[in-house]
Amino acid sequence: MRWTESLIPTMKETPEGAEIPSHILMLRAGLITQVMAGAYTYLPLGLRSLHKAIAIVREEMNRAGAVELLMTAICPISLYEQTNRVEAFGDVLVKATLPRAGRKVPVVFCPTHEEEVTSIVAKFINSYRQLPLTLYQIQTKFRNEERPRFGVLRTSEFLMKDAYSFHTSLESLDKTYKKMYNAYSIIFSRCGLPFLPVEAESGPIGGDASHEFMIPSPNGEDKVVTCPQCGYAANTEKAEIGEFRPAADTAEPKKLTELETPDAHTIEQVCKFLKVKPHKLIKTLIYVADGKPVAILVRGDHDANENKVKRSLNVKTLELADAATIQTVTGAPVGFAGPVGLSIPVYADNMLQGCVNMVVGANKADKHLVGVCYERDFKAEKFADLRDAVAGDPCSRCSGTLAIKQAIEVGHVFKLGTKYSESLGAKFLDDSESQQTIIMGCYGIGINRIIAGICETSYDENGIIWPVNLAPFEAVICLIKVDDTVIAEAEKLAAALEANGCDVLIDDRDARPGVKLKDADLVGFPMRIVMGPKGLENGEVEIKWRWEKEPTITPLNTAAEKISSMLKVEREKSERFKRKSDSK
Amino acid sequence: MRWTESLIPTMKETPEGAEIPSHILMLRAGLITQVMAGAYTYLPLGLRSLHKAIAIVREEMNRAGAVELLMTAICPISLYEQTNRVEAFGDVLVKATLPRAGRKVPVVFCPTHEEEVTSIVAKFINSYRQLPLTLYQIQTKFRNEERPRFGVLRTSEFLMKDAYSFHTSLESLDKTYKKMYNAYSIIFSRCGLPFLPVEAESGPIGGDASHEFMIPSPNGEDKVVTCPQCGYAANTEKAEIGEFRPAADTAEPKKLTELETPDAHTIEQVCKFLKVKPHKLIKTLIYVADGKPVAILVRGDHDANENKVKRSLNVKTLELADAATIQTVTGAPVGFAGPVGLSIPVYADNMLQGCVNMVVGANKADKHLVGVCYERDFKAEKFADLRDAVAGDPCSRCSGTLAIKQAIEVGHVFKLGTKYSESLGAKFLDDSESQQTIIMGCYGIGINRIIAGICETSYDENGIIWPVNLAPFEAVICLIKVDDTVIAEAEKLAAALEANGCDVLIDDRDARPGVKLKDADLVGFPMRIVMGPKGLENGEVEIKWRWEKEPTITPLNTAAEKISSMLKVEREKSERFKRKSDSK
Repeated sequence: MRWTESLIPTMKETPEGAEIPSHILMLRAGLITQVMAGAYTYLPLGLRSLHKAIAIVREEMNRAGAVELLMTAICPISLYEQTNRVEAFGDVLVKATLPRAGRKVPVVFCPTHEEEVTSIVAKFINSYRQLPLTLYQIQTKFRNEERPRFGVLRTSEFLMKDAYSFHTSLESLDKTYKKMYNAYSIIFSRCGLPFLPVEAESGPIGGDASHEFMIPSPNGEDKVVTCPQCGYAANTEKAEIGEFRPAADTAEPKKLTELETPDAHTIEQVCKFLKVKPHKLIKTLIYVADGKPVAILVRGDHDANENKVKRSLNVKTLELADAATIQTVTGAPVGFAGPVGLSIPVYADNMLQGCVNMVVGANKADKHLVGVCYERDFKAEKFADLRDAVAGDPCSRCSGTLAIKQAIEVGHVFKLGTKYSESLGAKFLDDSESQQTIIMGCYGIGINRIIAGICETSYDENGIIWPVNLAPFEAVICLIKVDDTVIAEAEKLAAALEANGCDVLIDDRDARPGVKLKDADLVGFPMRIVMGPKGLENGEVEIKWRWEKEPTITPLNTAAEKISSMLKVEREKSERFKRKSDSK
Repeated sequence: MRWTESLIPTMKETPEGAEIPSHILMLRAGLITQVMAGAYTYLPLGLRSLHKAIAIVREEMNRAGAVELLMTAICPISLYEQTNRVEAFGDVLVKATLPRAGRKVPVVFCPTHEEEVTSIVAKFINSYRQLPLTLYQIQTKFRNEERPRFGVLRTSEFLMKDAYSFHTSLESLDKTYKKMYNAYSIIFSRCGLPFLPVEAESGPIGGDASHEFMIPSPNGEDKVVTCPQCGYAANTEKAEIGEFRPAADTAEPKKLTELETPDAHTIEQVCKFLKVKPHKLIKTLIYVADGKPVAILVRGDHDANENKVKRSLNVKTLELADAATIQTVTGAPVGFAGPVGLSIPVYADNMLQGCVNMVVGANKADKHLVGVCYERDFKAEKFADLRDAVAGDPCSRCSGTLAIKQAIEVGHVFKLGTKYSESLGAKFLDDSESQQTIIMGCYGIGINRIIAGICETSYDENGIIWPVNLAPFEAVICLIKVDDTVIAEAEKLAAALEANGCDVLIDDRDARPGVKLKDADLVGFPMRIVMGPKGLENGEVEIKWRWEKEPTITPLNTAAEKISSMLKVEREKSERFKRKSDSK
């Protein structure tokens, strides 16, 4: 392929509005172009990388026994009403009305396909003999983003590999879950991504039922909690915090005092008004747990974690109390709840054990208490891990200390249970002819994020550094001078490389050599071959890996063979993972 | 691949609502399933065929020098406003409003991509040095169908290969147009489709500027005009009608008489009221041509063709006159115009030469004239070909007679000219630094229609008959008994075939042999291999082409080799076309 026959609009300057490396580099390298906020066209080079990622995903999904289908983007809104997801998705759900003969048909553009796939399975599966089954597709999803940003990391239209598995038992689900987890590890390895699988919230099925595949990156929107000592990794929602290791609080307990705090109901306002730091405050959150009001205490600089609260209290439903309930329970309007004198059960986060001289709401409008000490002024039913982890927390698995990293989510595996099969009537007859609900798992990969993930983590000041497996082209031949002789030699070399399974772009533009070398670095082709009349006279070309500084001179007559074998070695590097037996 | 690990829901009965062969067979063979009216999911077997069609299309587009990109489905409606296509598409255009931070963004789901691609080219192309360029994508289009029907032939969501070419000159456009025409012929040949390229309306660029690729089929929605004698083929809109060959009209001219025809303004009403056949009526259509009223006469059983009228009158604009103009010009309300006594220029279709005893409007409300004869009662400025062709018309190229066939449109190549580049500002600087408008062509293939086209034209009473190149699997191994020995032998044979580049499905269902053989015919795998314990004892399997009646017994130990070579020969049959030189 020749550069002049394609559309590769590289740019020298950082485009306006682009802030993070992947966005800047993908625009500058001519991989994508913006159609509108949150919508990007993949230009020829970007699409080549996308296709390579798709091929890897497809190959590994097939190998893991999943079967591909292609569902529609349009789907009647009624399907989403059956699962109560019209409201749940809110403005994220892209809706339209189709004028059909005599009526208006409301539809959604699917943001995911649990509804469609489950209704297909409900239609066609009726016996345990037809299970297990794993279906997947590589298809465009639509999710309106209120504030689209970060280039292709968060867009309203994106390519997703979504898989759904269907089972007669939790054991069967577990088996497929492991297969998918394993396939994901292989996929991201082959893509050259420095991925980190982290534990995520498990949802309806307890236990070890959900993992996110994260790419640590300073510009990631997600946070992961890791323990550098034992390797434990989870998202902040899920991360378990180890046993409390209190430092002796040597402060002298002060007198409990009530202060006027007019109009100060937020942590920020109270801190400002009383001139204290947030960690000296206690947040008192009034929840309704299984219908009964409870108070949850966490430190002012911490966030309560509802899933942890639910598990710790062993309740099925948990909702923040409304203003009326808060008034009844605390005797004060929202913003002034505190544990002192409260008559409902109080549960406190571990970190509040033995706390002294804290600030809490006074259960009176516009009043707070200061000098509050545990035991002397209030007591909790129990201390537990009730909050999101923060950096510096103790690890729950070892004596290490948790760290927090920003990360990009590229994949998610999840044991769904029967949420969708219940709502959509996906049942099967078991071997005793009794009807059961199908158990499901779901498994997603954001294909565009694979590409953005590379560009976000593998670059230098000159541009992207592609791994061979995903590079738009594995090699570029930069022509120092564009004349018939040089082009003929370049075409000959390209043909020889292609015959060996390499893909090559010839930069035949009528441009200065400097421009071509800069663009080769910017786009980030792994192998750069420089060819000019002078070198050709000596029977030589210059070759260089993108990540090396200096080129090597190599004889033209053996160049194809040498480069092919170098690329082969490089390709094999990304295949260095343990592939578990493919047998079932 | 094993049948039990996939989802292949074959059906015995014709599904409700399915009327045409492709719809019935694709549902019964488990290739597709309906999500809602006009939206179908491709199940695993259907998707395999779709992928094979995509691969052929992609290969030939690349070979023809087109470069692939992937544009977004969502696009701001403003782009369509710039080209005046919001109104032109009407209810076909699928629109949505995206709630973004603080505002509502109106978007369309693209029904085609002239707007998007032209705006991309306008952004990045500015010099003649960057042209010509042909961009294509294989992408999902959205077009609301008021009455979706015919299964996957007409749906609201479909996969299209759309290509757009950009040029500095008409000569360059012509070159690419020919390349695309040639590529399309090869694509449909390789897909095993009995295609017919027909001339279509040329639009802004005159001459030989548009062709449709049609699959003749009794259930096609389109009509094509062909001459069995010389091979001339065009759609009804474009088809030229040969010189008028009048049969002597021996009828005695009657007296011109005015009759009351109360409330009869349509051809049908007048015929019924006066008890005459439509071919004895003259339709008088009042048009405004380049701002001036004219009357166009065609026989009552014919349809005027506005493109032919425009060309014949050599005018730029042509619009049907409104009621007020008709009243002014004819002195009567709509429905009673006639040529007798009309003071505006009159143009008549060739077929009206020498007509006698016709019925025409009397230019008075509720009155018609009968016994109208050409020359005696009215005259025309000129006779010309002003109407759509009908069966029995003379061919314009030879002495043959035109026939009309129903057909399915699977592709279209079109010289666009500068319509979109003008509206969207796609310009280039020519070699003298003067700014010019880019000249465009566009080229579409309905990928789903390739699949439906096969199912509509290649089947028998038992099911689909796939050409090897597009079959979901080239071969099926039907197991007469499912036990470990038979499965092991089947897997061995499948592996050997796969190693030779064949794809094979093993029907390992716990079902009666009759069911499996029926399903093999219904799905229509080209090669059926029957394997059972008895045959295996004798070291034999049965093989049969889908289109043959009786199977052949073949030794198991040479079966893989034999079947592979049979499939290879069959594959090569569909490659029997002349491939023009790939050089430019």
